[in-house]
Amino acid sequence: MLLKQINQPSDLKRLSNDELEALSEEIRHFLIQKLSVTGGHLAPNLGVVELTIALHAFLDSPRDKIIFDVGHQAYVHKILTGRRDQFDTLRQYKGLCGFVKRSESEHDVWEAGHSSTSLSAAMGMAMARDLKGENNRVVAVIGDGAMTGGMALEAINHIGHEKKKLMIILNDNEMSIAPNVGALHNYLNKIRSDRYYQRAKDDIEALLKKIPGVGGKLAKTAERVKDSLKYLLVSGVWFEELGINYIGPVDGHNIPLLMETLKGADKVNGPVLVHVVTVKGKGYKPAEADSHKWHGVSQPYKIESGQVLKSVGPPVYTDIFGQAIIELAEEDSRIVAVTPAMPGGSGLLKFADRFPDRMIDVGIAEQHAATLCAALASEGMKPVFAVYSTFMQRAYDQIVHDICRTKLNVFFAIDRAGFVGADGETHHGVFDIAFMRHLPNIVIMMPKDENELQHMMKTAHLYDDGPIAVRYPRIAGTGIQMDEQMHPIPIGSWEIVREGNHATVLAVGPMVQVAEEAANMLMKEGIYLRVVNARFIKPLDEQMLMMFAKENKPIITMEEACVMGGFGSAVHEFYSANNIFNLQIKNMGVPDCFVEHGSIKEQRKEVGLTAEQLVANIHAMAPRLSQRA
Amino acid sequence: MLLKQINQPSDLKRLSNDELEALSEEIRHFLIQKLSVTGGHLAPNLGVVELTIALHAFLDSPRDKIIFDVGHQAYVHKILTGRRDQFDTLRQYKGLCGFVKRSESEHDVWEAGHSSTSLSAAMGMAMARDLKGENNRVVAVIGDGAMTGGMALEAINHIGHEKKKLMIILNDNEMSIAPNVGALHNYLNKIRSDRYYQRAKDDIEALLKKIPGVGGKLAKTAERVKDSLKYLLVSGVWFEELGINYIGPVDGHNIPLLMETLKGADKVNGPVLVHVVTVKGKGYKPAEADSHKWHGVSQPYKIESGQVLKSVGPPVYTDIFGQAIIELAEEDSRIVAVTPAMPGGSGLLKFADRFPDRMIDVGIAEQHAATLCAALASEGMKPVFAVYSTFMQRAYDQIVHDICRTKLNVFFAIDRAGFVGADGETHHGVFDIAFMRHLPNIVIMMPKDENELQHMMKTAHLYDDGPIAVRYPRIAGTGIQMDEQMHPIPIGSWEIVREGNHATVLAVGPMVQVAEEAANMLMKEGIYLRVVNARFIKPLDEQMLMMFAKENKPIITMEEACVMGGFGSAVHEFYSANNIFNLQIKNMGVPDCFVEHGSIKEQRKEVGLTAEQLVANIHAMAPRLSQRA
Repeated sequence: MLLKQINQPSDLKRLSNDELEALSEEIRHFLIQKLSVTGGHLAPNLGVVELTIALHAFLDSPRDKIIFDVGHQAYVHKILTGRRDQFDTLRQYKGLCGFVKRSESEHDVWEAGHSSTSLSAAMGMAMARDLKGENNRVVAVIGDGAMTGGMALEAINHIGHEKKKLMIILNDNEMSIAPNVGALHNYLNKIRSDRYYQRAKDDIEALLKKIPGVGGKLAKTAERVKDSLKYLLVSGVWFEELGINYIGPVDGHNIPLLMETLKGADKVNGPVLVHVVTVKGKGYKPAEADSHKWHGVSQPYKIESGQVLKSVGPPVYTDIFGQAIIELAEEDSRIVAVTPAMPGGSGLLKFADRFPDRMIDVGIAEQHAATLCAALASEGMKPVFAVYSTFMQRAYDQIVHDICRTKLNVFFAIDRAGFVGADGETHHGVFDIAFMRHLPNIVIMMPKDENELQHMMKTAHLYDDGPIAVRYPRIAGTGIQMDEQMHPIPIGSWEIVREGNHATVLAVGPMVQVAEEAANMLMKEGIYLRVVNARFIKPLDEQMLMMFAKENKPIITMEEACVMGGFGSAVHEFYSANNIFNLQIKNMGVPDCFVEHGSIKEQRKEVGLTAEQLVANIHAMAPRLSQRA
Repeated sequence: MLLKQINQPSDLKRLSNDELEALSEEIRHFLIQKLSVTGGHLAPNLGVVELTIALHAFLDSPRDKIIFDVGHQAYVHKILTGRRDQFDTLRQYKGLCGFVKRSESEHDVWEAGHSSTSLSAAMGMAMARDLKGENNRVVAVIGDGAMTGGMALEAINHIGHEKKKLMIILNDNEMSIAPNVGALHNYLNKIRSDRYYQRAKDDIEALLKKIPGVGGKLAKTAERVKDSLKYLLVSGVWFEELGINYIGPVDGHNIPLLMETLKGADKVNGPVLVHVVTVKGKGYKPAEADSHKWHGVSQPYKIESGQVLKSVGPPVYTDIFGQAIIELAEEDSRIVAVTPAMPGGSGLLKFADRFPDRMIDVGIAEQHAATLCAALASEGMKPVFAVYSTFMQRAYDQIVHDICRTKLNVFFAIDRAGFVGADGETHHGVFDIAFMRHLPNIVIMMPKDENELQHMMKTAHLYDDGPIAVRYPRIAGTGIQMDEQMHPIPIGSWEIVREGNHATVLAVGPMVQVAEEAANMLMKEGIYLRVVNARFIKPLDEQMLMMFAKENKPIITMEEACVMGGFGSAVHEFYSANNIFNLQIKNMGVPDCFVEHGSIKEQRKEVGLTAEQLVANIHAMAPRLSQRA
């Protein structure tokens, strides 16, 4: 009932603390209900209900800027800023975005699907404010996992140096998606759990008074010791040493305490970090018990039992990867798996159980992960960098400079290549071909189905002439029978999956299936389309390309990746380099735009990566064939 | 005389401390002499003479791994590992590389031209060692500037967590290339300069004894306080809190002290950081006095006066940028300049003098720099991100996710685009077109000469529909007369600089001049080449492209950037998207390889980016024209 009265953040200012607490219960109920139908990032949002209420009750948004690191923790923010009634469309095509979105609301001042950007954002907004002579508040909300991302640490180094007034809310729930790892996490854990830090304050004050006055040579030192002790009392010495005031730890589910703490922090004239301790999934037992599973649920679930209604179907590529890597690692002790905080999402949980010493979770740290792989390879290990395509963007320079340049044997297992559906434009894996293909020494593959994925993994494992990547999609496999034995595929060899003498489509990955659909449609018109599984994006199958050139018939390239600089361009480049001109080559791929959230099917349709569009393109390129039909 | 006896690191073990010190003087003399002819990174290497000698005298390379962060500080290492006699060829074509190079020596275990990779490398090598059951030492040598790079901080977080045995030598000289900035730098400075940290050890021990025994409730607290004080004594609490043992600060020019410290550090069973204080340029007065200028000298110098023999010629593009940005900033107070630790190299020193509040040096932190620009732009400022092409690679994800996706008005001033000469393969700016062109919403320009650069800066400044980039080369300008007024160039408009009816070359940047040379050569044969200044790499001049297509004559694209995914591919993509087929388009650019150090002229020749090769390509594409000639 309170919830219905909240249409903008200022409505919160009329509520008492008790009412704010009642509101938090309503919001929790609302989230559990709504997401049971739509799916979404349940656990992270249940963890920040009180925190978000307190922030909006204390601050004056949008004048004050609230920056959420990784915008999927902003559902409560969306509810409080007038978007309550749109939650039935959450993460659906043309519906409410699952992340902060500037075009949705003036209260959404910073967008992020990738982690660790909020501190740089806060610093930029604080600097702009000061340069413009304004005086609004700037507040970043960042998880303890995101804090270990390199760019967040770069920002801390800058923030502590410049001493601009801004507030960092460190939302410490010990989890990002998987349990957090790393020295900074251990340090935060020590602060939270150490009675000394939390309760010894009065004791130490008393003790300080007991230290006798000392004269002479020791006097100054005694003074310094007292200073140091007082300094230690504030707990967050790691932050304080970098020039950032530390307050905490504070219970993140206690609204009055949060409000009081925010008031205190606001009085600090410089950067201040408020260490807030929250429970991910708070208030929903299944999510509290397994916040990893409930980080993001893509299917509906039964509220009472917490049973997620899984769609039945073929295995996903991630699982095939997870099985195959174990099989390979059984045979070769040089294999180590490296993940930037995604052991579950990348299908490595069973690997971690089987080979705990060879499983390296570096936390949210893609750059370090890539270069670590380079060093492991330089010492004769066989590192497998398991990473989502979109997050791999963070390691571009390391791939260029530390891996490709030195031609080290790193195996990139690139998950979520192509459209990803509901996570939308920050998460699509549509740039990796374009940002890797131009790098010397790398091999890039994509399988047409899950069976080919396992063979590509064998291929990658046996390859020892530099980096090799296999990219695979988020969608489920085709349901094809899996071969019992993995076998390698010759590097640079394509496969003609269907012959046809009127035109040729060079299809990458799941586009092979789409091309076959089109071929079936065209066959009814008497047009025969050759379908090629262009499983090597680099190097190309040059022999086949030479053969196709001689035929002088339409060639269409098709990839679920940006068309600029993509596989299609590689085909043009090859012919140009070989002085073969006057061909008909049409490129199909993701055009020059960002594609919003929805289903993968809707996303493909939006950009024309469909059998129907392929048919239309053939008609346009070969009008005479079409007239005959 | 000692130097001649040192052909491998083990030769050092026979020398006494006095002899090692004498050797350091010989090496210093050797460096100053040799580099006065070849140029090179003088100041950084003068700073690490004793440190490198001590490391090699104590360690057992190559069994023990010495990893230099940014390999340009490894000259002394090269001298001690059998490459003394190759220094006359330093940084020259086919000569000794200016960076660590695995192919040169078994003692070169890690290559890096970009900063902050050494800690990830050390961690990977330590993990590989332990997995293989070996017991060699792993030592990373990293500057205090490089330590603030995000990936180094990611690695520290991992190293402190895993507790593998490895040694970090923090070479603290207060400078990377420019004076270092940032909170971590301030912290190190405090450790170095604070008498408390350096000398109070005994005093505090004495004081601890004076604290009376306390009973009851306070007993435990008193114990904890004593522990904490002891803990503070080790100085590097920031590192210690992250699980990394800290030793220091140590005078980096005192060989016996360094040897003793290394021995002590080696006994630590886990990660240990040795804080070594050095003076950049040590032992050569001009370099000590201005270590920024002497960081890297590309020309010969007179040893006695320290006078660098500068070549006389047209201004470099960097200077034109530096002047124009001041002019623009005079008119528009929204302009702020952001640099990742390169205020001098990017031509921003005068800007910093004129607008200290609007000059933001974030330290070595390209990721943070890019996202900071996004946030500044989101608040209505006009940020100019001045960055070298090769270092911009570090910010790829931030450019995608934080700038292009949200279409924010960030102006990228990309210096060192194309070949860079003596710095070689880690520093070429040949990938930026390929890694930016496929990003939606971005405009990319390159000027044909320094006059056009200033107009492009005006263009970029007036543009307010998203990110815009201008890339410019390291080479000097053409010497053209500069217009007095800057004026904008219509977005997406090319310029025909010479008409010709036999073939068209679409040339980017300095390739326009090369194309004109070729046109002159061809004219003598009666072949007339149209030369187009393709000053917009994105968007293309579609009208012009449509016109050229109708002519159905050979088209050649020419860019000093990787041919894969480059400007040439954009031309193919455009025609394909518009269903224009059967054209003759030849792409010239940097082929699929890394190009080693040498002069830019040699590098262009190596990959065929020359007027001669353009002529040859025209001959091949239009044999009938050639026969006529």
